[in-house]
Amino acid sequence: MNTLEAIMTRHSYRGKYKSISVSREDLIKIMAAGLAAPSGCNKQTTSLIAVDDPAVLEKLHKVIRPAAGETAPAMICVLARRIIAYRDKCFAVQDYSAAIQNMLLAAVELGYESCWYEGHVTDTDRIGDQMAQILGVPEEYELICYLPIGVAEEEVRGPKKKEFAERAWFNGFPEELK
Amino acid sequence: MNTLEAIMTRHSYRGKYKSISVSREDLIKIMAAGLAAPSGCNKQTTSLIAVDDPAVLEKLHKVIRPAAGETAPAMICVLARRIIAYRDKCFAVQDYSAAIQNMLLAAVELGYESCWYEGHVTDTDRIGDQMAQILGVPEEYELICYLPIGVAEEEVRGPKKKEFAERAWFNGFPEELK
Repeated sequence: MNTLEAIMTRHSYRGKYKSISVSREDLIKIMAAGLAAPSGCNKQTTSLIAVDDPAVLEKLHKVIRPAAGETAPAMICVLARRIIAYRDKCFAVQDYSAAIQNMLLAAVELGYESCWYEGHVTDTDRIGDQMAQILGVPEEYELICYLPIGVAEEEVRGPKKKEFAERAWFNGFPEELK
Repeated sequence: MNTLEAIMTRHSYRGKYKSISVSREDLIKIMAAGLAAPSGCNKQTTSLIAVDDPAVLEKLHKVIRPAAGETAPAMICVLARRIIAYRDKCFAVQDYSAAIQNMLLAAVELGYESCWYEGHVTDTDRIGDQMAQILGVPEEYELICYLPIGVAEEEVRGPKKKEFAERAWFNGFPEELK
């Protein structure tokens, strides 16, 4: 699969996963893809914890409410550090988003599906903090997202999106949309 | 090139570009890759303007100080709308970051180089606002980044990064790093 195919094929997958395990080799490839993303002023604010131990997965899923991705045999937790790049500028959100996008594409390339669960864990009930505690994550790291990783059991379908011409233009903003 | 190769090959390119034009077909492929990125609650907050008209490029580069990517024959400007996904949650930064990462990878796949210039245009001198004015962008859109697109004239080299084991772990945060 080439890059453009992976990009156009990738969709957020919220269905069930097959009980086929994900090899350490593949988890390393996916995480290495995440770490290869650019970061503002090369601050590398993103860190990752892959979870493939069923006992740890079970503990994590006990605090994730509502349940999401609970049938996946592996998960990658994304940790952010709010490091200042320069003056008052912090690019941690951009950094982890680029890293997540790389991992979602790498997963598709390797035959897996995933989904970017962020609002789910960073919302007012702070599920991410409970997950961080289970994983022994120090306070300077924030667990901001997790990605289930596994082979899809159901059909993968994307949401309806706007047409290209509604979101992309050449050499200026189109008069007719002003 | 498969996805993992593109991900590992991509680096921020700040050198000169060759005077080889970028076809509209390729610019459309790159932008379509950007629009295919996920967005929080599918709000599709990211829009794009590709610039390949030399007169418009010249106008834009007159306001970009210090100069960056000025020899590239094309550029993609990234526009964000701060749309609320739910309650008070806005994922516009995550949305455009995923879109940018997709475009950087698509560019590499197609033989081009690029660089994520964001702090450069969103900083206190608000260069992005001047660029938006040149492109006739309405006020509800913020021009937050531009990507030069072109064929590299110089060698592409990445920055030194931390080792995998310093940023990625399995089943818990490592005791020795606490």
